[in-house]
Amino acid sequence: MKVALLSGGGGGARFARGLADALPPGDLTVVGNVGDDVEILGLHVSPDLDGLLYTLAGLIDEERGWGRAGETWNALRSAGAWRGEEWFRLGDLDIGLHLVRREMLDADVPLSRVTARLAERASVSTRIVPATDDLLRTHVHTPAGSFPFQEWFVGRGHADDVDDVSYEGGAEARPAPGVLDALAEADAIVLAPSNPYLSIGPILAVREIRETLETRRVRCVAVSPLVGGKAVSGPADRMLSRMAGGTTPGHLVGCYVGLLDALVIDEADTPAEAQVELVATKTLMHDRESARQLAERALEVACG
Amino acid sequence: MKVALLSGGGGGARFARGLADALPPGDLTVVGNVGDDVEILGLHVSPDLDGLLYTLAGLIDEERGWGRAGETWNALRSAGAWRGEEWFRLGDLDIGLHLVRREMLDADVPLSRVTARLAERASVSTRIVPATDDLLRTHVHTPAGSFPFQEWFVGRGHADDVDDVSYEGGAEARPAPGVLDALAEADAIVLAPSNPYLSIGPILAVREIRETLETRRVRCVAVSPLVGGKAVSGPADRMLSRMAGGTTPGHLVGCYVGLLDALVIDEADTPAEAQVELVATKTLMHDRESARQLAERALEVACG
Repeated sequence: MKVALLSGGGGGARFARGLADALPPGDLTVVGNVGDDVEILGLHVSPDLDGLLYTLAGLIDEERGWGRAGETWNALRSAGAWRGEEWFRLGDLDIGLHLVRREMLDADVPLSRVTARLAERASVSTRIVPATDDLLRTHVHTPAGSFPFQEWFVGRGHADDVDDVSYEGGAEARPAPGVLDALAEADAIVLAPSNPYLSIGPILAVREIRETLETRRVRCVAVSPLVGGKAVSGPADRMLSRMAGGTTPGHLVGCYVGLLDALVIDEADTPAEAQVELVATKTLMHDRESARQLAERALEVACG
Repeated sequence: MKVALLSGGGGGARFARGLADALPPGDLTVVGNVGDDVEILGLHVSPDLDGLLYTLAGLIDEERGWGRAGETWNALRSAGAWRGEEWFRLGDLDIGLHLVRREMLDADVPLSRVTARLAERASVSTRIVPATDDLLRTHVHTPAGSFPFQEWFVGRGHADDVDDVSYEGGAEARPAPGVLDALAEADAIVLAPSNPYLSIGPILAVREIRETLETRRVRCVAVSPLVGGKAVSGPADRMLSRMAGGTTPGHLVGCYVGLLDALVIDEADTPAEAQVELVATKTLMHDRESARQLAERALEVACG
């Protein structure tokens, strides 16, 4: 059963591993968000692609939820002492990957090919594909002004309320090679339990990806990132409250009009009503096994 | 007393610190070799400039003789695991500097300005100036073929005998801003106890630097890197034997025809004869104090 997953953030990566564990090797393609990519110290940092790669390769720091296990921070500390940027936390092991990626990008290897090579080098059988090889950057608009995503998220600790989100380059961005094929070949499309504005939104900003979902011939199922109306981590609940008017399953479904056939929600969010089928289960992924169980539930729902 | 020092290698850096300790702050300008600069993992690595910077800033690993004290190697190990280059040892603290330098170079800040900024950030009062901002690269010609310097030195462990050395870009390279001024204002010019072919040779390959030394109106004194005809470290003795026919003070002076007024040699190399004044002393720099004493001796000789 071929599955295409749209994913961003730590929850998305954990869910992707759950799906990979639930499916035969090679049956999963993950389309990753690149809206939060950022240039730091001349390196191309791609937090969501790297979160997927590290999680699927078993390299992730499970406790912190991002970056490498056993990470050290000496290069960044040194760069700071030489008055380079140090606001964005890059560990030494992480920098090793960024240096190798930067070299490939400088040699005009597109990000999708770079990502495939890195996944191959880590023996990850799941295909990880960026939504686009083109420039696509999330900007956040707040009462305090507009900010490139990471400046708001990391630099300002995502403290400002968000009035709106925009996706620079979204209108022109083409899907990366492999994205449309994966969607076309999929027996089911799944949206990970990710932030709808910051993780899935930038992927859907790529016109051809959104159109493909709108005209899908297979079921598309989203998994809610909320438990009892609260985000498991990050600002999804605050953003939904302010931008969608609430954090019920119905409000979440409103972010995906015309794109969903069903939404998997947490039992804590029942009873609920929405424009699509709702299926309640335990959605907390407190370990690898619970992520696999959630993924299996989503697959059952996707099969109708 | 203004002094201009031409320097490369670990011995050159230790001697530079000796001179800095012996002179009032700000009286020393070190013209550093860039012939062994190399691009690694997309970073511009400048081993001799960095050796000077680290030594003068008190950051050097004294025991190893290169790189930072307290260094770790996680980024390089990670890069290697992602199949990036790992033959050239770059530590995490070192990479912090390379990232900051790379960003400045990418913003078209010339290497001399980058070097001055880094020295300022490390509160180093000695001026460190690269011989040139232009491309200048040492190539080594051996019975096994010709190699870019670091490929032979690090990659092949400088095992091959050297028949000849050439300096790519030397004919066209212009002295970096500050080099000719430092030489013109100097009350004495000193050549550090460095490899004549690999450290001083590339600096002298810059035509205007060589011409300035040829037409100098102050004394120019070299300090021998040999003790009892043997290099304290590195391949200087093997290269002199093969390329100059021997390792006596006379053979070393032969590398600097028309450029020297005196050569400071080790007591172990007496008695000796050469085309210039020879002054014997203890030249081993086993600690900072002995480096200062050697520098003071060289300054006395430079004063005639």
